[in-house]
Amino acid sequence: MKLTKEQHQEILDQQSQKNTTKRVTSPELEKILYEALPVLDHGFIRVVDYMGDDTSIVQSARVSYGKGTKKVSTDAGLIKYLMRHRHSTPFEMCEIKYHVKLPIFIARQWIRHRTANVNEYSARYSILDKEFYIPDKQHLAAQSTNNRQGRGSLINGSQADEILNVLKEDAERNYKNYEKMLNETYDGDIIDEKKQGLARELARMNLTLNSYTQWYWKTDLLNLLNFLSLRADSHAQYEIRAYADVMMNTVKKWVPTTYDAFIDYRVGGMELSAKGKEIIKKMIEGKKCDYESSGLSKREWNELMGSFGFSQNLV
Amino acid sequence: MKLTKEQHQEILDQQSQKNTTKRVTSPELEKILYEALPVLDHGFIRVVDYMGDDTSIVQSARVSYGKGTKKVSTDAGLIKYLMRHRHSTPFEMCEIKYHVKLPIFIARQWIRHRTANVNEYSARYSILDKEFYIPDKQHLAAQSTNNRQGRGSLINGSQADEILNVLKEDAERNYKNYEKMLNETYDGDIIDEKKQGLARELARMNLTLNSYTQWYWKTDLLNLLNFLSLRADSHAQYEIRAYADVMMNTVKKWVPTTYDAFIDYRVGGMELSAKGKEIIKKMIEGKKCDYESSGLSKREWNELMGSFGFSQNLV
Amino acid sequence: MKLTKEQHQEILDQQSQKNTTKRVTSPELEKILYEALPVLDHGFIRVVDYMGDDTSIVQSARVSYGKGTKKVSTDAGLIKYLMRHRHSTPFEMCEIKYHVKLPIFIARQWIRHRTANVNEYSARYSILDKEFYIPDKQHLAAQSTNNRQGRGSLINGSQADEILNVLKEDAERNYKNYEKMLNETYDGDIIDEKKQGLARELARMNLTLNSYTQWYWKTDLLNLLNFLSLRADSHAQYEIRAYADVMMNTVKKWVPTTYDAFIDYRVGGMELSAKGKEIIKKMIEGKKCDYESSGLSKREWNELMGSFGFSQNLV
Amino acid sequence: MKLTKEQHQEILDQQSQKNTTKRVTSPELEKILYEALPVLDHGFIRVVDYMGDDTSIVQSARVSYGKGTKKVSTDAGLIKYLMRHRHSTPFEMCEIKYHVKLPIFIARQWIRHRTANVNEYSARYSILDKEFYIPDKQHLAAQSTNNRQGRGSLINGSQADEILNVLKEDAERNYKNYEKMLNETYDGDIIDEKKQGLARELARMNLTLNSYTQWYWKTDLLNLLNFLSLRADSHAQYEIRAYADVMMNTVKKWVPTTYDAFIDYRVGGMELSAKGKEIIKKMIEGKKCDYESSGLSKREWNELMGSFGFSQNLV
Repeated sequence: MKLTKEQHQEILDQQSQKNTTKRVTSPELEKILYEALPVLDHGFIRVVDYMGDDTSIVQSARVSYGKGTKKVSTDAGLIKYLMRHRHSTPFEMCEIKYHVKLPIFIARQWIRHRTANVNEYSARYSILDKEFYIPDKQHLAAQSTNNRQGRGSLINGSQADEILNVLKEDAERNYKNYEKMLNETYDGDIIDEKKQGLARELARMNLTLNSYTQWYWKTDLLNLLNFLSLRADSHAQYEIRAYADVMMNTVKKWVPTTYDAFIDYRVGGMELSAKGKEIIKKMIEGKKCDYESSGLSKREWNELMGSFGFSQNLV
Repeated sequence: MKLTKEQHQEILDQQSQKNTTKRVTSPELEKILYEALPVLDHGFIRVVDYMGDDTSIVQSARVSYGKGTKKVSTDAGLIKYLMRHRHSTPFEMCEIKYHVKLPIFIARQWIRHRTANVNEYSARYSILDKEFYIPDKQHLAAQSTNNRQGRGSLINGSQADEILNVLKEDAERNYKNYEKMLNETYDGDIIDEKKQGLARELARMNLTLNSYTQWYWKTDLLNLLNFLSLRADSHAQYEIRAYADVMMNTVKKWVPTTYDAFIDYRVGGMELSAKGKEIIKKMIEGKKCDYESSGLSKREWNELMGSFGFSQNLV
Repeated sequence: MKLTKEQHQEILDQQSQKNTTKRVTSPELEKILYEALPVLDHGFIRVVDYMGDDTSIVQSARVSYGKGTKKVSTDAGLIKYLMRHRHSTPFEMCEIKYHVKLPIFIARQWIRHRTANVNEYSARYSILDKEFYIPDKQHLAAQSTNNRQGRGSLINGSQADEILNVLKEDAERNYKNYEKMLNETYDGDIIDEKKQGLARELARMNLTLNSYTQWYWKTDLLNLLNFLSLRADSHAQYEIRAYADVMMNTVKKWVPTTYDAFIDYRVGGMELSAKGKEIIKKMIEGKKCDYESSGLSKREWNELMGSFGFSQNLV
Repeated sequence: MKLTKEQHQEILDQQSQKNTTKRVTSPELEKILYEALPVLDHGFIRVVDYMGDDTSIVQSARVSYGKGTKKVSTDAGLIKYLMRHRHSTPFEMCEIKYHVKLPIFIARQWIRHRTANVNEYSARYSILDKEFYIPDKQHLAAQSTNNRQGRGSLINGSQADEILNVLKEDAERNYKNYEKMLNETYDGDIIDEKKQGLARELARMNLTLNSYTQWYWKTDLLNLLNFLSLRADSHAQYEIRAYADVMMNTVKKWVPTTYDAFIDYRVGGMELSAKGKEIIKKMIEGKKCDYESSGLSKREWNELMGSFGFSQNLV
């Protein structure tokens, strides 16, 4: 990630602010506020604003429960209780805003989370940055053979080089042609005084899906956790997981108690179906229990056994 | 509005916070943060948190438009432009949280605005406050005869007294019986040691719709303005308008530039239909133009003429 | 539940429609379309429209997965897969519309589910029906002593009679006074020619929270299932569960394959936290495992053991 | 637009359905149900399901207003009233589902409308179609000089040919390389048995933004009208307007009364600011009124005069 001089200065300016407020603050999050945390080759994530902290969740839960909650011992206990029982509305009382730079094909996955506010850089209005995502060799994987939407083994050697070359050349050529059609370079120079420039809203269609875009993305804590439980998951595409992992860390700084409960009940937790529950019960009671009599599909059986690390029971 | 000693102390504690932050702050809003602004006889509105200010709107708009916006002269000019053209997403970048105490029949209108986060005091869990809304005499109006969902002339004299008595007595009796069924008073005393207390989730059904409830209500600025344009409007029921008017004032303190644009383009503005536009055009051009040839319904014609104060043209 | 003659005729008229369509239909749901299914003493639920069926979910999932899905064996297999992995968007492709008559205090719980379309009977505009919910004796329970938002043992004998009398008398008196203030009876007769009628939007505040209201409520299948997993649950208040149970049955008729998957994976399923998973694993492996060393709170431990019916392990 | 044999057959099969239903139907919409209506060079729009018609709006409005509405004369009168006063919830009672094939850069604009249900073809899972959007010469416009997000004059002659060639060549080359990296052609043939295929979720990043994708898109009538009022507008990019125009026509067939009201009050209507209203009033009254004394910005003044076609007043 390389910031322009202007961007760098803007961040310094923002970070040098020292305002007084009666609002609650999150000291650990303040430390990294506005900082550009690098993701992938040219992307970043910046926390640019936030509202509330762990105590805001507790406060609104106590309004809901009224005098009744006085007996719930601690704030941490209450947050764990809310998380465990999916009492979700108090987590909506915190809000965070990120500035994100990311490849367009990842932006397309991300935007599927509808419950957020978004302002994206408009390529109708302005010229997109001259940057595209090229994977590291360690992430250049073949199509998985058993998971239709996953990656399999790494691609090595000359085939890897070929692929990376293609990605790079195609993106660069298309960007060059984008500038040529616009009749204006990224730096603002007119290319051919005798020609017109194609409308930006049209020229952009020549760009590749690994071109970088950027946006402000604002959401409440509940929806952020939903986003993270899907996108920081091992089934998520590596490139979006890279963003989710960095965001996970910002959550830890922002609302540490909620973060712990989230790790325990969501990230590290699992779901059991009615049938799965019956099987687990039998196993605990030492009763005979196998795939054939389980009523589960082979896939379900393997997922269930795999969750507990019982590899000898896989079929 | 009368606060309990505990509530009063809680507000003082909150207001005595003096935290340092790198976030933008809204100095005028900070001055009234946490304060209980009275509404109706026992209600209040408190701003308990916020995120962003006028500059946050500008900042995210400039991300959208990229380098292109540099040419738009001023921040105020950009905000006016966004408001006029209903470029709405930048206004979603600010967030505010209110603590509101309000009668249940008003809460039922309010909650119809779905794009907000809410934590309401739970009468399943705790006992509701012993407070109910009784209108001032100056708001005790008869059913309007020409507007099925509005108020007409004031009700005066002995009929007014009778009505106020009924409202008061019925609310008080029902609350008393609520306590009796709960077998516990508002202050927590057991009424009859030999009896059980009815489940709170059941007992509450005996309360009247003017009982006060309270909630935390959090929304973004765009949805807040939508709420206010409907609820601070003269067609809104007086009791919800009383809340909207107080909130209007908090918006003015929080985002003064946006507030001005909102007043000019929304609150003071109007919509013209295609047919209405044709009529206005003719009137400007001095062409003959009357109800009969307008193609409008009588109601539409009167609304149109009324908007411009042309009372002589009403039919 | 007693329908007026007009309502009865309206239902017959709707049911006698016999239109031809190229859309998919759900034959079992068609059989009960428009029918008023009774709930509580005066409430009902009617399915008044729907869109899609089980095949619509499959169809949109196959659009998402493209040619890839051809290999997934059966429609039922695909629906189970989607439900298990919380691939939720295909379930949004079905839509249903209910007409519901329900007590106001239940409507207030219900409306907290924001992702739905609602048109409620307006008491600003019209006079509310003369009907209120009075519980059956078998549901008249005392406040639970160990669950702050639940019911405990039944209230019997003379105390039960007293409570039911209070509920009935207070609701009736308040309704009577409502009519008197409106100066118009439910049936439309003016009470006192010499008096004005109080504005409807004001008079309604005298009504009790067990008064019946009604609305059209429309939602997609995904959000309906979320609603049902919370409201058909044993922790939900009985009165809303009564509605959820009837709706559950309409889902079974409408989308039987989805219903089965919902019962297996949601209704009958459970969640395990990271810590809970470790404990279960140890128990299966026959390792020593008790509350003291579990790292769980007492409440968590009991919930976990209770889920599997291991009552001897409760602490 | 060219459909594959399978797609063609699927449409015929769907259209040959003849089911009986008690639901309301929209006869004109039934006539074009499932039909692929062509848009741009390879795109289409198909209505694949719907729920409700004009009478559904009326029906739910009458539930809201209760007995009160009996006096509102006609269904068309009620729909016009609702549209004029932005009583929006009854329009949410109708739902429609489209199957759309569209270029990715348009899909990215479209998806910004959050209040809809979407299932998009997954390029993580399957291989994208070998189709990309190339504009007609008549839409190949230069960047507007006075509107930063608009088009100016047409680009003609050899520059036009050059641009179209670049767009075509770049898209084709990138698609070819996409197949090569996947090591599998669009038709499923393996290219090089000795090589692996790059994961689909990675290979897709090489495609250009004019590649076609497809999705199921379902929304209620209110949100559809909001979408259309923005996207069928002259300020919208031509390529999305092409879709909006076709959808506009489906609305006309589906809910003709609502369509008429929408054209009158939204599409053909306009908004006046508080200041604009004052100016119009003066003009009607024949008072002196010019830009200098108006308090409007030059842009606002011109927009206002332009709306009424008063070109002599432009400054």
